[in-house]
Amino acid sequence: MARNKHPEETVNLILDVSFRLFMEKGYEHTSIQDIIHNLGGLSKGAIYHHFKSKEDILVAVTDKITEESNQMLLVIRDNPNLNGKEKLKAIFKESINRPVQNDIFTVAPNFYNNPKLLFYLLHDTIQEVAPNYILPIIKQGISDGSIETDYPEQLSELIIFIANIWTNPLIFDSSVDESYCKFKIFGQMLKGFGLDIIDEEMLERVRELTVICQKNK
Amino acid sequence: MARNKHPEETVNLILDVSFRLFMEKGYEHTSIQDIIHNLGGLSKGAIYHHFKSKEDILVAVTDKITEESNQMLLVIRDNPNLNGKEKLKAIFKESINRPVQNDIFTVAPNFYNNPKLLFYLLHDTIQEVAPNYILPIIKQGISDGSIETDYPEQLSELIIFIANIWTNPLIFDSSVDESYCKFKIFGQMLKGFGLDIIDEEMLERVRELTVICQKNK
Repeated sequence: MARNKHPEETVNLILDVSFRLFMEKGYEHTSIQDIIHNLGGLSKGAIYHHFKSKEDILVAVTDKITEESNQMLLVIRDNPNLNGKEKLKAIFKESINRPVQNDIFTVAPNFYNNPKLLFYLLHDTIQEVAPNYILPIIKQGISDGSIETDYPEQLSELIIFIANIWTNPLIFDSSVDESYCKFKIFGQMLKGFGLDIIDEEMLERVRELTVICQKNK
Repeated sequence: MARNKHPEETVNLILDVSFRLFMEKGYEHTSIQDIIHNLGGLSKGAIYHHFKSKEDILVAVTDKITEESNQMLLVIRDNPNLNGKEKLKAIFKESINRPVQNDIFTVAPNFYNNPKLLFYLLHDTIQEVAPNYILPIIKQGISDGSIETDYPEQLSELIIFIANIWTNPLIFDSSVDESYCKFKIFGQMLKGFGLDIIDEEMLERVRELTVICQKNK
């Protein structure tokens, strides 16, 4: 049936079905064959026309989620009512509170078996998120006096690199307590830069996400 | 000729020749065939008996360098004349001053094309260096009053993760100025934890290493 649709709709169908299967069965235990079974008549060839591998599908699924995430970052970045520091805090709060995080942490892809995905995340963090979303906020913070640094580019990278990579239980296997402590020390690091923005509510949410992730690993 | 040697000597010969070639020609431009040509009669089969791929050889070369690095870490960790903070400073100083760093930065392996190598470095940083070398020093620092933190495990990881991965121009392509600024902000981060250990001499050496790395990329 999907053969008659526009290519974009076919791609979206593949991504939706794959994401659901990754969540239900786990990425490792989902095969291309499983995805085909759930696509109602789409052939293996049709999938391989759009994606080279299962990992490629996962990257595209992640891309879609990233787009939604970037939309959130954009809204906060361009909010005229917050100063730089408040925007940074809003970003961390929103990032961990988005419901889709539960889904991602349920899929709990193993990055060690998915080098492409890890590279994608590294690239996205350093090349996209840092310069396009965090940097303008840090620069605003310097102007409005809420953030103090002589190295806005590097501070942007450092903060988002730690937040997206090191504290990410999907990348570095951490127990619930370890994740909590990682965020505590991340909060302390931010405080060292005058950024008192990690609160107890966020720490509790981190704990919750790590529990979800641990359950599904 | 190498066929008659003990396997360990054959492996060492392969590693020495490979390291020299990687430095002279660059890793990307060195083929297994090049390595064979320089091994004086060792067959392709003999190499593949020990290493599955060129990347495997690079990992083994890195392993050998890491062993030497760990030896240095060990000596500083067990030095009875330094307090915790002084040991941390000594580690950073020694790490960037070791002459072999010039060689590594001359090889300038591209981690984006060598996922295995990146994973190796991530694994070594988080699973080996942080718990075995940095953590005991942080704990000593807590005891002797030179370091203050409630989360010694996480602080150890955070510090060495930033030092080995984020500030590493082999992983994240940085201009000389960017590398300098990254180390400046890393120094500021450490200061936030009461660790005033990055000095101008180290910053100059970082600049020097980045110049070597840039030249060979």
